[in-house]
This record gives sequence, structure tokens and C-alpha cells, in this order.
Amino acid sequence: MPKIALAQINPHVGNIRSNLDKIILYTNDAAAQGASLVVFPELAICGYPPLDLLHFDDFVKSCTDAIAELASHSNDIGIIVGGPSVNPSKEGKDLYNSAYYIYQGEIKQIVNKTLLPTYDVFDEYRYFEPNKSFNIIQHEGIKIALTICEDIWNIADDSLYTQSPMSQLQDADIMVNISASPFSYAQLNIRSEILNANVLKYKMPIIYVNQCGAQTELIFDGGSMAIATNGNHVLTLNEFEESLSFVFTETLFDSVKSFAKTESTQYELIHDALILGIKDYFQKSGFTKGILGLSGGIDSALVLYLASKALGSENILPVMMPSQYSSDHSISDSKLLCQNLGIENKTIGIKDIYDEFMEKLEPHFQNKPDNIAEENIQSRIRGVLLMAMSNKHGHILLNTSNKSELATGYGTLYGDMCGGLSVIGDLYKTQVYDLCDYINRDEEIIPTNILTKAPSAELRPDQKDSDSLPDYNILDVILKLYCEENQSARQIMEKGFDADIVKKILHLVNSSEYKRKQTPPILRISPRAFGIGRFLPIVASYNL
Amino acid sequence: MPKIALAQINPHVGNIRSNLDKIILYTNDAAAQGASLVVFPELAICGYPPLDLLHFDDFVKSCTDAIAELASHSNDIGIIVGGPSVNPSKEGKDLYNSAYYIYQGEIKQIVNKTLLPTYDVFDEYRYFEPNKSFNIIQHEGIKIALTICEDIWNIADDSLYTQSPMSQLQDADIMVNISASPFSYAQLNIRSEILNANVLKYKMPIIYVNQCGAQTELIFDGGSMAIATNGNHVLTLNEFEESLSFVFTETLFDSVKSFAKTESTQYELIHDALILGIKDYFQKSGFTKGILGLSGGIDSALVLYLASKALGSENILPVMMPSQYSSDHSISDSKLLCQNLGIENKTIGIKDIYDEFMEKLEPHFQNKPDNIAEENIQSRIRGVLLMAMSNKHGHILLNTSNKSELATGYGTLYGDMCGGLSVIGDLYKTQVYDLCDYINRDEEIIPTNILTKAPSAELRPDQKDSDSLPDYNILDVILKLYCEENQSARQIMEKGFDADIVKKILHLVNSSEYKRKQTPPILRISPRAFGIGRFLPIVASYNL
Repeated sequence: MPKIALAQINPHVGNIRSNLDKIILYTNDAAAQGASLVVFPELAICGYPPLDLLHFDDFVKSCTDAIAELASHSNDIGIIVGGPSVNPSKEGKDLYNSAYYIYQGEIKQIVNKTLLPTYDVFDEYRYFEPNKSFNIIQHEGIKIALTICEDIWNIADDSLYTQSPMSQLQDADIMVNISASPFSYAQLNIRSEILNANVLKYKMPIIYVNQCGAQTELIFDGGSMAIATNGNHVLTLNEFEESLSFVFTETLFDSVKSFAKTESTQYELIHDALILGIKDYFQKSGFTKGILGLSGGIDSALVLYLASKALGSENILPVMMPSQYSSDHSISDSKLLCQNLGIENKTIGIKDIYDEFMEKLEPHFQNKPDNIAEENIQSRIRGVLLMAMSNKHGHILLNTSNKSELATGYGTLYGDMCGGLSVIGDLYKTQVYDLCDYINRDEEIIPTNILTKAPSAELRPDQKDSDSLPDYNILDVILKLYCEENQSARQIMEKGFDADIVKKILHLVNSSEYKRKQTPPILRISPRAFGIGRFLPIVASYNL
Repeated sequence: MPKIALAQINPHVGNIRSNLDKIILYTNDAAAQGASLVVFPELAICGYPPLDLLHFDDFVKSCTDAIAELASHSNDIGIIVGGPSVNPSKEGKDLYNSAYYIYQGEIKQIVNKTLLPTYDVFDEYRYFEPNKSFNIIQHEGIKIALTICEDIWNIADDSLYTQSPMSQLQDADIMVNISASPFSYAQLNIRSEILNANVLKYKMPIIYVNQCGAQTELIFDGGSMAIATNGNHVLTLNEFEESLSFVFTETLFDSVKSFAKTESTQYELIHDALILGIKDYFQKSGFTKGILGLSGGIDSALVLYLASKALGSENILPVMMPSQYSSDHSISDSKLLCQNLGIENKTIGIKDIYDEFMEKLEPHFQNKPDNIAEENIQSRIRGVLLMAMSNKHGHILLNTSNKSELATGYGTLYGDMCGGLSVIGDLYKTQVYDLCDYINRDEEIIPTNILTKAPSAELRPDQKDSDSLPDYNILDVILKLYCEENQSARQIMEKGFDADIVKKILHLVNSSEYKRKQTPPILRISPRAFGIGRFLPIVASYNL
């Protein structure tokens, strides 16, 4: 009874040697467990996305050399693995995004990707020529329709593409799709629907193997699965972790029972995704220790919690940096949080440094009234202190800005916008609250007072976020419509929102594009994060 | 004798109303001067590149509404103008990148772009469906092969594309190509060659109209021209400025004389490009005043000169911020430069602020030896001071990092890497010297002492760039091979460079990707600048 192995691995972009070693390890393991075929994700040999590394001939050669080396491990088992291949034609792009079918010591067949996603976070047509020829793979009597990620996503009537790979491969027995499909909280349902729709349409089972692990801002959940012809999920792998799992081909055609996983809640997924995002950022960069500023507010509290889970309590250093405007509870709440998490912390007051700055600037401020300048100096002093600690001790600074702030420009460039990685920059403020509620579901980890007090930057006396911004419940809905769903002011107003508020918010978003240009990479958990996958002009004029 | 007008305009991305007004003005002017046809650049109605503004239905509708309004101005003159159009098919991308042919009050024909550049700074397949049908335009007895930018760039044997628009349009009398082709110091020659090759191959004259003006980091030179069937350049427009110029169609077929412009030198072009880049950044953002830190070194001296030309001496504020490590000549050289340029300046010492920082950090530095932390604090204090002045007075901070520094990470994030715009971030240090020599060609504007002293960041006693970096003459060549020409270490060593130096430099480049993620937009003057058009993974591991 032939057995197929799904190898949901976490590759490291660019680290071809370590990826190859891992692929060989999984291959040998799968062979030892009697599998006839082992399937790895899209571009697994170099990790996804390799970006402009693909422009280096020597990089591509390292990939193809690694694939050739892998072939010697295929004597007892077939291997399907993703990697770039060179387009032999003089015309078109230099490369294909390929799936290599390897068996009995050699590359038997190379299948190229037809549908090249070039939207959102994807820019595959930058690198690859689309495939135009179609062949079924024969492996030990099984006819396989092998496709790569997007190749099976054209299932809707209003497809982005005029080609359809699967309609050329209908004589196969099973579909195998290798993917590098990133996580978003909306993605898992959509993906499951797309896979089921393919099974239904082409009357074939499908084996789907997706990359897991985080690559800078993109977090891949894996979520690989096998779906039988009758629509039953016969195998579903855990999200966010590596796994080698097996499916018997017979069950694909005659499944009596569905093994679909219990669906995780949205915030459970976001929680796990962000922790993996931090963990992989550090591990793949070779760092172990993080630092962050702890203000007493909810954002830095949440980031501290997530970082402590990703790096260990002993590897994260929270620094409190009170000013003359900091409230007493900022310190006491922060200390309670650290106590709950078992984390040491440090305190460095900023008042004296601030006074020194003001003394030096006074002759140049020309008696102009206090404005954003004084507020930003405080935030930037904190940035300098955190970066000094980072530079002295080798900690990586974690940024604590949320998506509502990033959207409206409610943050100080070179101040609280500093950091190597933005942990919650893809969570609106309302989502920050919801995630904290999830974390506190069984016990009070994040102190209630942090969750209930009115948000404030504490950069001037009695400042509140609500002085400058509308209520977050309204703000976040408008931001999502504008920044994620491309709705114009007119369309948003038609949904019943106040015209002045809509105009004000859209103006804030438009006029803070220059700030977002200089943010750290933002862990992406939504269908549309700031940073990767969103490109708006900086010097421009528009009223949408 | 029919006359065609070339309207080389500088649109403002997103500002459809102002672009339309300008197009109407030029159209009326061309009609008044008896032109039969006026030709505007690619996507002139919205400016190029509109980026994700194209994802907003209401933005696209504003564009098509504006084109409809323009039609009423076409009673006496034909108009060719670029703009997006909606793809009527359910399949494929939603939009086309189109050229509208308008005459006698209506849109007579829409021609769509076939070859969609998706490489370098371009990502057109993100937005547009490629055209697949071809028709010649008939305007007052002239048969026009109308194409859009890239459509005529597939002239080489190893084309990126498998389609060829011009080979479908060979029955025409003349070629008209509307473009948004950005400047680089290498681009002008290439462009001229491509145009001539098309004239030669298709035995037709060509009218080429390119956008001018800067859009954030991309600088468009225009350089529109008309080339006769015999290869003579019968009209060449000035670079970097708006222009309405005319060509008689007869001269296109029977030109007796070439009017090719005297070619500008490379540094003359770079000089003009950067000044336009600064000017348009400010004008299109609605700002008038700039600020920068003046160190006494060559980089900030060059930026001050360029900014004074772009904004006027009265609108640029240089600030000197000496520390205990600053040499006397840093101040005297800076003052002489300001005097030469007729510019006021300010001085704010940083020693006291630095001492205050060190006092507060001392308990947390745990007696560890001095390292990059102390150096970066000085640089970041300067960043805070400059941003404070910017926030207080509304000046925009100009960044003074050069390309060699950005490449090697020899700069302080949130310190000297601050700014709204990087002016010389696409010039290697050796190019900085060459451009200063060009500026000083007739008189000493930039003091000789600034040009001859050894480069130093002056962040520790007797520091020199050469302590940490190889000689710039070697460094810059290696950087260009690696960062622009995708040569691997192996390939660079084969050219005779020392293996250790090559490895060290490539390691510096690879490990400072996270810094470049957070730089301001960089005015692009080379074929490959950092920032736009170059995407390397941040969390990755590779040895190229």
C-alpha cells in the first residue's frame, strides 16, 4: 500500500546548505518509514521568498547543484522538491519556478509554475517565466498532476489568469501541489476552500505541502493537508511547526472518515504566528536577546509577553524610561507585568537628558510655543537609550507600534518607531486588546489596569490618544476599509461614517507614508500589512 | 504641412486635477500653434508610477473621468495621452496601461501596453493585463504605430518577452511611443540606441515623448525626441525640464540634417538630476525649507550645495554639531563653504548632552569597553537635534549618506541615516568626489580642504574611514560589481581583487540589509540604487 510523505519544513532563505541537509534528513526518514514519495514545499531548496538573490547566477547554480546532490538520495524514494531552474530559451525571463521530480538517482522531470502571482506580497513575474507546456508525472504507477501554489488558485470565474494548468492535467490520478503560501488570519479558510474546490472540480484527491516558518515579515503556517476525492480531509498537519507526516494513497480514493483538525480561533493563530515570527527572526539572524521599552501601556506589555514566549524570559530586557509626564501607574503596572512573567527590568529616567536637550535648543527654538518637537524629543531620547543598550550588549530592539498608530502616523520616527522588528505593527489597537484578552483567558498575565486605562503616549501633561484620534472602535474599521480594502472616502462615508472623521483619518494615513517608509519589517498577520505587499507613493497628492 | 507637438510634461503622481489642467493647457497651446496632434507621456493623467493607488476603483474612475473631460478639448487637435483603462474582460488583471487617442471631442481609440516591465524599479504586471490585439491609428491621413514605453524595448535577440508589438504594426507610417522612462547616468545612451534600432528595423520615423520630473526617488529626464527614417535626430528636447516642441511630419521622412543635442557629461546630468530631485520632492510635498547637519566632510558639503541650488540659499539651514572629537578644520571648512554659498548656519555642541547620556547609561553599560555604542550615541544626538529643529520650524531634514556607506552599513541608524530624502545615497564616495570636482570646475565653491582631507566620521579620537574600510577606489568597484551587476565573490575575485577584501565587503553588505530597510527614499541616478528596484531578504543567510 504506497505511502506518500508530506514534509512541511521551515527553510532558511538563502541558506542552501542547511536547507539541503534538512531535505536529505527528511528524505532519509521518509524512506526509512517506507514512503514511496516525499513531497517538499515550493522553492524549498532556497526558501521562499529568495527575492533578488535569484538575480545572481551563482546563487541559482548553488540551488541546482544542491538539487543534483539531492538526487543521489532518491534511490529508494521519489522526491518532489521546489527550486529555481534555468530557462533554456533565449526569450523570456531567465528562470522558472520549478518542482523537481527526482527518482532512482536522477532528475526525472521538471515541472514549471504557470501562474505567477504578482500582487500583494508576491512579485514572481519579476523573476520567472510562466510555464506553457503540461505533462503528467508517473511515479510507481500513480499519475500525478503536479502544480505549484498559485497554479490551482484560478478556480473562480473572475480569475486573474487566462491560463489554467489543471485543465491540462485532468488525466492524472492525484493532484500534488507544493506551496509557499503565507499566513494571514483570513488565509486558512480561503485555502481550505480553494483546495476543496479543486478536488470537487477535477474529481481527484489532492496532497498539499506548504512551507512553515517565518522569513522576516512573512510568516508561513504550513497547514499542509491531504484531501480525498470525496472531500474528506484525511490528513491535516499542525500549523507553525515542522512535520513529516504520511498518507496512504488508498485512503485518498476511499476515505471513510474525515480527520479535519479542530479549527483554531483567530487569536490563537495570531498568537502562535507572532511568537514564531519573533523566534525565527532571532534564530535565523543568529541573535538570542531582545530589548524593548516598557511604557506601562498595552502595546509594549503585549510585545513583552510575546517576546518572552519566543525567546525565553531570561532573554528579554524591558527598560522603563519615565519622564516628568509619566504617571505612577506606568511604573507600577510595568513592574507587576514583569513580575507575572518572571522578567528582570531596568529603569533609566529621561528628564535630565531632556532638560539638557532643551537647554541647548532653547536659543534655536526662538520662543515658539511647545509643539510636536518637545514630544518627539522625549520619544527619541528613549530610542537613543534603547539603541545604546542594544549596541553595548547585543540585544535586538523590538518595536512596539501597532497598526492604528502606523496608519495614522501617531508615532515618532527615530523614537518609538525604532527597532529591528515590528512585532504588532499589523494589529490594530482593537486587535491588540483582543489578543491580550486571549492571553489573559485563564489567568491575569497582563495586569488588568494596563487593559482598562485610557491609552496615552504620556508626552505632555494629561495627554490621551483620544485627544488626537477618534475612538479606536471607529478608527480601526475605517482604517481597515481604506488600507486593506481599497475603499475611498466616498465609499466609506456611504457606509454611514461621519464625513469629517473619514476625511481626517484618510488625510492622516496619506500624509504619514514617509514615516512608514522607514519602519522596521512588520510581522504580517493580516491580508494586508504595512510594508511588504503595500506600495503607496510618498511624494504624491490624492484624495481618495 | 502637418505638425506634431511633443508635450514633455512633469506630472504629479496622484494629482489628477493638476495633471489634467496642465494637459489641457499644453493641448490648447499646441492647437493655437497649429499642431495637428499633441502627444503626452505614459500615464500622464495620474503621473508615473501611481503604484497601489491603482487598486482604488475611485482613483481609476477619476483618471477615466479626466480623460473624458479632456476629450472636449480635442475639437481642433488630436491628443495622445497615457492613462489607465479598465479591462472589460472578467479574466486577467483589472486594468490596462493605455494610450488614449482622442480627436473631435471623443476617444477614438485605446491602445494597451503589451510588454509590462516587471524588473528593476518596475512592477507593472502587479497592476496591468498585457495587451494581445494590435491596431494602427489613423490620424488625418497618417498611419501611426502607437506603443507605450517598454513595447519597443524588445529589440535585442535575447528579449525578456515572447511578444513583439511593433512586428504587428509594420504597415504604419510613423511610430509614436509614449514613455515614463526614468533617468540613470547609463540610461540616455541606451535609450537613444533602442530608438535608433527601432527606426532602422521598422524603417519608420519615431516620435518619442517621455515624462520629466522627479517622483520621490525616481527622476525622469524627459529627453523626448523625433528621429527621421534615415536616423537623423530632427528634434531633441532638453533634459529635466518641461517643454512643448514641434516637428513637421515631412522632416521625419526627408530630413537633411541631424539636430542631435550636444551630449551632456555624466556629472552634468547627475548634477541636474539631483537638483531636480530635491526641488520636486519639496515642491510636490508642499515644503520650502530644508535642514541638514554639516560635518565638515565632503558628503554634507555636497548636499548643502545641491540643496542651495534646488531650494535657494535662504531656504536651507546647515547646522554644525561639534563633539569633543571634532577637529577644528571641521568648523572652519564648514564656515568657509557656507560663506561661499551665502548661507547662514547654526552651531549646537553635543558634548554636554553626550555626557548626560553617558552618566545615565554608565550603571547599565557594566564597565564594558567602548564600542560602537558610544559612537552611535553621538550620531543619534545629532539626529535628535536636527529632527527637533525640523519639528519646530517645519524644515525637512536632508540625509547626507553616500552609497558606499549605505552599502557597507557604515552609518548610524536613527543618527546620520535620518532624513526625509537621501540626496546622494546613490553616489559612491568616489562619485561624490567627482561630482564636487565638476561643481568646482570654474571656481572653488566647495573648499579644497574638504576635498583633500582624509574622510572621517569623527566619532572617536583620530578616527579615519580607512581604519574600517578599504580604499574607496577599490571598495566602490567591488560594491558596483556586487550590488549593481550581481557578481558573486567568486566572480569578483576572478577579476583580481584580494579574496579577504572581497569577502569582508560582501559580508558588510549582506549584514546591513536591515539598516537599508529603514533609510529614507534615495534619489536614483544609477542603474541600480538601494531602495526601490532592489529587494534582498533581511533575515537570510547566503555567501555569494
